[in-house]
Amino acid sequence: MREVAVLGIGQTKVEEQWDKSLRELAGDAALAALQDAGVGRVDAVYTGNMMSGSANFQQHLGSYIADWIGMRFAEGLRLEAACSSGSAAFRTGVLAVASGAVDTALTVAVEKMTDSPANEITAELATAADAEWEGDQGLSFVALNALVMRRYMHEYGWQHADFMPFTLNAHANGAHNPYARFQKAISEKAYLNAPVVCDPINVMDASPMGDGAAAVLLVPAEALRRLPGARVITVLASSGATDTIAVHNRRHGPFLQAAYLSAQQAYRQARLTPDDIDFFELHDAFTIMAALSLEASGFAERGQAPRLALDGEIRPTGRIPIATLGGLKARGHPVGATGMYQIVEVIRQLRGEAGGAQIDGARIGMTQNIGGSGSNILTHILGCS
Amino acid sequence: MREVAVLGIGQTKVEEQWDKSLRELAGDAALAALQDAGVGRVDAVYTGNMMSGSANFQQHLGSYIADWIGMRFAEGLRLEAACSSGSAAFRTGVLAVASGAVDTALTVAVEKMTDSPANEITAELATAADAEWEGDQGLSFVALNALVMRRYMHEYGWQHADFMPFTLNAHANGAHNPYARFQKAISEKAYLNAPVVCDPINVMDASPMGDGAAAVLLVPAEALRRLPGARVITVLASSGATDTIAVHNRRHGPFLQAAYLSAQQAYRQARLTPDDIDFFELHDAFTIMAALSLEASGFAERGQAPRLALDGEIRPTGRIPIATLGGLKARGHPVGATGMYQIVEVIRQLRGEAGGAQIDGARIGMTQNIGGSGSNILTHILGCS
Repeated sequence: MREVAVLGIGQTKVEEQWDKSLRELAGDAALAALQDAGVGRVDAVYTGNMMSGSANFQQHLGSYIADWIGMRFAEGLRLEAACSSGSAAFRTGVLAVASGAVDTALTVAVEKMTDSPANEITAELATAADAEWEGDQGLSFVALNALVMRRYMHEYGWQHADFMPFTLNAHANGAHNPYARFQKAISEKAYLNAPVVCDPINVMDASPMGDGAAAVLLVPAEALRRLPGARVITVLASSGATDTIAVHNRRHGPFLQAAYLSAQQAYRQARLTPDDIDFFELHDAFTIMAALSLEASGFAERGQAPRLALDGEIRPTGRIPIATLGGLKARGHPVGATGMYQIVEVIRQLRGEAGGAQIDGARIGMTQNIGGSGSNILTHILGCS
Repeated sequence: MREVAVLGIGQTKVEEQWDKSLRELAGDAALAALQDAGVGRVDAVYTGNMMSGSANFQQHLGSYIADWIGMRFAEGLRLEAACSSGSAAFRTGVLAVASGAVDTALTVAVEKMTDSPANEITAELATAADAEWEGDQGLSFVALNALVMRRYMHEYGWQHADFMPFTLNAHANGAHNPYARFQKAISEKAYLNAPVVCDPINVMDASPMGDGAAAVLLVPAEALRRLPGARVITVLASSGATDTIAVHNRRHGPFLQAAYLSAQQAYRQARLTPDDIDFFELHDAFTIMAALSLEASGFAERGQAPRLALDGEIRPTGRIPIATLGGLKARGHPVGATGMYQIVEVIRQLRGEAGGAQIDGARIGMTQNIGGSGSNILTHILGCS
């Protein structure tokens, strides 16, 4: 298996981008990555996206995006894994370059959500759950997460306010990220007084949707190692695992078995343990998911992630900094693009380009991207050598 | 790059399967492939599908299908490349096994179209074209193909009736395929008198939609070669290329540049020429596409494919048999599943399991799967050793 390295990154700001079409957004991120890499031609374009077929009446993004950015004739495929579509596109690029079939793989992920009415987006997000057994009961995604959070609080004795540090940390970090949707720290009062969306989840537990795109160009590492003095960022691990599509079929709802499995696989591939991870871009679509991701990935015991957060260990100076550039909560959650934003943010940290959000001595970063309510989870570890 | 082999295949009949849900269809094909292979566990499930998000209100098929077939915890991703989604899933499996990251990859493709009203399906198919420049003009897929066919007839001087052999051959071959939607030869009169859909395309030029699923299990070839006396079917080539998403942006509308590029790549990978290909499962969504695919892949000069067909060279005993088990025209075209059906049919031929449709001495077979109106084309070559 060939070692895979990063040659370029690009991203747009996450916001309501009504003046940009789907392809313009994707193109902005993709062309930025090519410019960053100094590359004018690629073998393949792998695009991650969840809902363009219904929200933008456009599918077939493999060809659509390749054409728009002037890469017609390259291979072009689209990956969809609900909110983990971005990581799915990245992983496909990793597999293609690792196999030797492709030498330059542009992975790009895009989502354009704010042109659609909120009720339509809620219905489209529900297609990531089990349509027949969850969607037909009227269960939205926030409702599914609320059930999991309520059960978690019941089992482990936490109060709603104990989840506050996840939100405060994300917003404090996002203040240093010019690509984040919200670039402002928030107060304890703002969290505690936020309106409830679906009890116990309030607005400040939930990440905002948005329009955005991010891109990463992948090449064989050997090509870069030949350049004298080059700092090479490589993919140390790439793994994915699924769980039941419906939450009610799980043995233990408040544990992310797919996160556990994909993290364990990633650690094995990279020959690392959680102690080796300098920072962790996890999938804090809701505060409960940040907690469950930390536990499943070995950073906290079951039921103890809020303790880690309350002790300040998730902050930039803590034991395992998370959401270092705002996470889903402050950077925003353009669903099919989020996984690629996480990868781009890890690379910014490894390059030392995270500005005021820079983690000192960041050499190994991990991402974890969740599709559905924990039903598809991809984990990546990147390192700098 | 590891050599990739086929261990099992499965498929459902293409028809109006109102008694089966999306996952039941996919599951029937996937479990048949696992049973055929004698395998009870896989590392990854790669699912190809185009329109389940809008037609079935269900996305996230990676997890959805893995869960349904009892493979929860395996990796699960969904590939979409419009009508070439089936090949996209197959190619992803090839890349994953070739890279060494995955040892057993179940590739499955499914489409369930007939629950939806025809006008909705027509609109959903149009999301494979350029929504802003073609879809918004009211151009349906058959309209785009009609424009290409009219131009082709104008440039090369063919009449509509000259395309008849493509249809007659497909239906004659489909009569031997128990999984085909139409299992009956048709007459010249039926072709000539068929109602026009969009001039010059009539009903008999166009393939029928349908519900269906097909699956192929991939493993490293070395694992099979260790078994004494085993006949091993391997993937000799896998390639994809894109073209402009909109037909009007092409230099020469009636030539499939993406088919040419992906076929050339495939021949290079396999170290073969068109003369070495024993039979060719091409993408005869419309008769014009069968002609263009033959020309772009090197089996006929530009503008001369109807000659090849009129001379009988596309029949089972001809120089390059096509649509040997009915093709899209008679087997049916469940869009996102079609590419996987093509692969399964090549394997049936290579195994000598094609019954009355068996091609004598079939040792090397090629598939070509077209997404959009020629904007994304994947070519695969499989061989038996």
